[in-house]
Amino acid sequence: MVVVMNLSADPEQINSVQQRLEQFGFEIHMIRGVNRLVIGAVGDRRIISSLGLETMPGVESIVPIMKPYKLVSRESKGESSVVKVKDVSIGGDEVIVIAGPCAVESREQLLTAARQVRRAGAAILRGGAFKPRTSPYAFQGLEEEGLKLLAEASEETGLVTVTEVIDQMSLELAMKYVDIIQIGARNMQNFHLLRSVGRSGKPVLLKRGLSATIEEWLMAAEYVVSEGNESVILCERGIRTFENATRNTLDLSAVPVAKGQSHLPVIVDPSHATGHLRLVAPMARAAVAAGADGLLIEVHPEPHKALCDGPQSLTPEDFERLMAELKLVAAAVGRGVREMVM
Amino acid sequence: MVVVMNLSADPEQINSVQQRLEQFGFEIHMIRGVNRLVIGAVGDRRIISSLGLETMPGVESIVPIMKPYKLVSRESKGESSVVKVKDVSIGGDEVIVIAGPCAVESREQLLTAARQVRRAGAAILRGGAFKPRTSPYAFQGLEEEGLKLLAEASEETGLVTVTEVIDQMSLELAMKYVDIIQIGARNMQNFHLLRSVGRSGKPVLLKRGLSATIEEWLMAAEYVVSEGNESVILCERGIRTFENATRNTLDLSAVPVAKGQSHLPVIVDPSHATGHLRLVAPMARAAVAAGADGLLIEVHPEPHKALCDGPQSLTPEDFERLMAELKLVAAAVGRGVREMVM
Amino acid sequence: MVVVMNLSADPEQINSVQQRLEQFGFEIHMIRGVNRLVIGAVGDRRIISSLGLETMPGVESIVPIMKPYKLVSRESKGESSVVKVKDVSIGGDEVIVIAGPCAVESREQLLTAARQVRRAGAAILRGGAFKPRTSPYAFQGLEEEGLKLLAEASEETGLVTVTEVIDQMSLELAMKYVDIIQIGARNMQNFHLLRSVGRSGKPVLLKRGLSATIEEWLMAAEYVVSEGNESVILCERGIRTFENATRNTLDLSAVPVAKGQSHLPVIVDPSHATGHLRLVAPMARAAVAAGADGLLIEVHPEPHKALCDGPQSLTPEDFERLMAELKLVAAAVGRGVREMVM
Amino acid sequence: MVVVMNLSADPEQINSVQQRLEQFGFEIHMIRGVNRLVIGAVGDRRIISSLGLETMPGVESIVPIMKPYKLVSRESKGESSVVKVKDVSIGGDEVIVIAGPCAVESREQLLTAARQVRRAGAAILRGGAFKPRTSPYAFQGLEEEGLKLLAEASEETGLVTVTEVIDQMSLELAMKYVDIIQIGARNMQNFHLLRSVGRSGKPVLLKRGLSATIEEWLMAAEYVVSEGNESVILCERGIRTFENATRNTLDLSAVPVAKGQSHLPVIVDPSHATGHLRLVAPMARAAVAAGADGLLIEVHPEPHKALCDGPQSLTPEDFERLMAELKLVAAAVGRGVREMVM
Repeated sequence: MVVVMNLSADPEQINSVQQRLEQFGFEIHMIRGVNRLVIGAVGDRRIISSLGLETMPGVESIVPIMKPYKLVSRESKGESSVVKVKDVSIGGDEVIVIAGPCAVESREQLLTAARQVRRAGAAILRGGAFKPRTSPYAFQGLEEEGLKLLAEASEETGLVTVTEVIDQMSLELAMKYVDIIQIGARNMQNFHLLRSVGRSGKPVLLKRGLSATIEEWLMAAEYVVSEGNESVILCERGIRTFENATRNTLDLSAVPVAKGQSHLPVIVDPSHATGHLRLVAPMARAAVAAGADGLLIEVHPEPHKALCDGPQSLTPEDFERLMAELKLVAAAVGRGVREMVM
Repeated sequence: MVVVMNLSADPEQINSVQQRLEQFGFEIHMIRGVNRLVIGAVGDRRIISSLGLETMPGVESIVPIMKPYKLVSRESKGESSVVKVKDVSIGGDEVIVIAGPCAVESREQLLTAARQVRRAGAAILRGGAFKPRTSPYAFQGLEEEGLKLLAEASEETGLVTVTEVIDQMSLELAMKYVDIIQIGARNMQNFHLLRSVGRSGKPVLLKRGLSATIEEWLMAAEYVVSEGNESVILCERGIRTFENATRNTLDLSAVPVAKGQSHLPVIVDPSHATGHLRLVAPMARAAVAAGADGLLIEVHPEPHKALCDGPQSLTPEDFERLMAELKLVAAAVGRGVREMVM
Repeated sequence: MVVVMNLSADPEQINSVQQRLEQFGFEIHMIRGVNRLVIGAVGDRRIISSLGLETMPGVESIVPIMKPYKLVSRESKGESSVVKVKDVSIGGDEVIVIAGPCAVESREQLLTAARQVRRAGAAILRGGAFKPRTSPYAFQGLEEEGLKLLAEASEETGLVTVTEVIDQMSLELAMKYVDIIQIGARNMQNFHLLRSVGRSGKPVLLKRGLSATIEEWLMAAEYVVSEGNESVILCERGIRTFENATRNTLDLSAVPVAKGQSHLPVIVDPSHATGHLRLVAPMARAAVAAGADGLLIEVHPEPHKALCDGPQSLTPEDFERLMAELKLVAAAVGRGVREMVM
Repeated sequence: MVVVMNLSADPEQINSVQQRLEQFGFEIHMIRGVNRLVIGAVGDRRIISSLGLETMPGVESIVPIMKPYKLVSRESKGESSVVKVKDVSIGGDEVIVIAGPCAVESREQLLTAARQVRRAGAAILRGGAFKPRTSPYAFQGLEEEGLKLLAEASEETGLVTVTEVIDQMSLELAMKYVDIIQIGARNMQNFHLLRSVGRSGKPVLLKRGLSATIEEWLMAAEYVVSEGNESVILCERGIRTFENATRNTLDLSAVPVAKGQSHLPVIVDPSHATGHLRLVAPMARAAVAAGADGLLIEVHPEPHKALCDGPQSLTPEDFERLMAELKLVAAAVGRGVREMVM
């Protein structure tokens, strides 16, 4: 950390800052510029915010130098992590495609979708049972009934399953029925929930909050890992910007940035990010070309009847075509696409 | 709602859209431009998203015309709502000041702060017992112990109290000890929690999410009110933008906008928005001049020792000075500042 | 356009709005909802803003339905435009790579760079002679001397050239020496300059402003085309968001969106968007996979000695490697990469 | 500046960085943490970007510590600057109100507006003669004819005048007819134009770009002042964010931030920022309460007939009412409002 002192800081003020830093175990380096004193302080980055330095007389600003996360950092572990769920490995050589409907709506809808996405080559089935909806008047999910249908679909097709949880109760239910626990964008900083999934030991798919920096996203992952659960998959799903031609702005640069700063696998959700089915395929191809370890894609047997996110859901035919394209792009960047052996 | 058809939409496609709208009870108006057909549809705004119109062949886009919220809208209730908590009224002629430390840290800290802010004229005491923190390594709050201290401080000083809850468990605890339940920015779209505080019947202070539009904020309030709880106080606390000279960008225009579109009272939190103590006073004065019904201000007996948000906390002396300034600004816009009778 | 009337609008107010619309040649459709009147108005979108409807008593809001641009729209011209410059076609089957240093710094630097990028397969040489710099103390470009060096490099290597202009004077100079005129992000809404390049007849590379919506970007292109110059190449180069791990946020979704709404070719500049050389290659590959018609890439013979944008410049070796990767990705999406015949 | 080295940086790499810094006159401080070396470097902040340090092997990142501007900084000049134009002082005890129409449309319109705003107490008349418009089909201004009308209005009413220039030609014309030269938001980084107004010696009203950080805004002012022209007035006019209930988001915190970091006066334009006439008065009052030195307000004799920005223009009656309110708010913060002696 660097403490920048005011031009007018007097020796007594400088002394107080120095004492406070030393009291907390920081090693001090005084750097005198032409007009100004700057104090380099070596110590535990994680306690900076509790030192109250910004409020001390004579202090102009604090500039942190080190990253605030540790366990998830690439520096703490040089090789990339691979998250294994049953026979599926996320973060290895193969690109993994997760597909299925936004919400589980009925037995027929989910089983049909599961068979369709499996046939096209998806490795993991998605489906929401607890739906956070902007409007209190919109469909909110089938809850436990939806989870049971996911388990049934998994048993029939052999697909690994993932579903979103929104609180302690839904987490406990989901742990009984599905393989991967998803934390949605709106809950990325629901820290109690992060700790709970950390303690659960289940693999976690952690979506980036729609106004979260990459650093905050990695700090959220740090919450999970700090509870002993290293099976975290990061998922970029668009950030909020001024542009309104798309639902959110898919930040594909976040893929190489996050993979550079962390050892965790990173996947991309082009469906929620763009909100338009015509944009899903080009952004899915781009994500693979940018180095994503997987994709999360909404597919619905009949998108125009979907209770949720119909406008961005692919038909099964669209999805089959996309899978063929993805194999070509993956091959172009030296990877394969994981496919179920039928 | 207006359905904009493609230039190339054929009669059969137009017919399908028309049938689907009529099937859901919409009244249809065909508007033929020079090149293009536009369909005006009168009906229930709240079911638009479940019609799947965007995915129908021949449809270019859907333009909603009406607002998606109803109960919280100014149109549903012309006069401004006043939320009454004990003898304090929020949303009436008087500006209400809520003050206190970011986190309850100890009995001495909280009682000292309570006495200081009461003396300076605050009507409500704030203090966090459950702290959502970006870092898993930071202080996370005293939990129930903190709530008990708030109750004790209230009993001694007569101040109404407010504290943040973060899930079902903390809500149940907080309901036993404090007067107003705060939903923080990170939980603005935690819809289960919104329903729970709606059912609790307790007055709710609802912070705007840091990337929430004003419309989404009002939709979050609609969740609470739709459960029968009309005592909702909106709180603007800054939005996330590219500017990094301040922690967030305080969107003061949101005060007249929200008060124009809704009958609910609106207060402002300049402490979290700016993140710098030197900016708190000017932004607090500006909020009152813009028409805010109240303020939420962090005050700590010893900011440099604060475990949380020290850099933006006012000293008791700063706060006294600010209260004097606020009375002058409130008077200039035809209002008073609520003060406790000692 | 749709005019939404207030709940309380009276017949006289409605009548005034109707008269004003009819006076300007709009055809009127009255749509009565349960509580509210909405007026659909068919007419010239381009004069809406001069009608003053928003200020008329009884009017709540105006909702435009049609796009404000016309000449650049996909609807006005179904097939994609191909911009031809000498023997290079931008917007056809082949992906075009533009490469070279941020700034022309010296004869040796530019000629070396030109030979290197030509050898690796670039079709067009870039180099800045007029540099808009955030700081008045930074290098501002070689001006006409730089343009002469571009012309010399073109003559030697056969490469087409592009350079940025910043005002009338630099435009007039550039027209004498280079093949394509670039309008930088900061000048995207410098409307006099847009008209001037429109009248110049020279091919124009139009960068998106860093806070411009896609609609505003297309309106800027409309300025150029409305002067009779149809040779416009759109260039996405990142938008400003809250994320600061990258210089800007590359909005790759803008590629399929702009190509859907307009017939103009769209290229991508991953160098300026990301600001980090390690991110250039993954984002360049992603751009091609998303359907971009070309790339604009900074390459410098010795990046650590660059007077401008060194941190994002590729070395010639990096660039050669990238070109090889791009050919594979282009092939995967059914395209080639244009290469000079040596 | 602080140079953060990679964990794996070797002695040779460290040595190269050290040599390069010393070669450019920087004084070096080696700070060894537990795992990592950090190099503190004291020297000229303005040449950092030309050192190419980010591209050197072993370097992880560069963290600048000092501000990049100098002449406009509060540190270079402790007391606040007062810009004097004829008998009007901007930046002193009195709040200055600039008012008038968005565009000069006709002799009658401008003279009527000038008399009306003078009567209500405005000190400076605004009116656009060169209008940068998003659409090529919108009214673009009366150009020199408009400037002559401003001069005539000034002669009749005694009001100081301000108008926007957009390039060299309009600047030269404006210098003959008006008192203050405005640089619009879209030209805030038109660096040649900034230099030209700097050399002109005329007082400059510099609007903040809609996606400019406060630091970039001050750098733009530095361009003007570095040419010897210290008469710069900063004007906050809203930044672009995701919120679309207002045209832009008025960043009132920028007032105390800019006044803290710079000695230049700061005014606020609530008309362009909000885009809605109902929001102009509350935001104008808030700006004064936040410490703004003045306001820029659009007033039109007949807003519904305005050729430009009618929806945000106040009527003369609205403006008179606002002036009365502003006097009360200014008094509450210990200031007056400058008024013309009739």
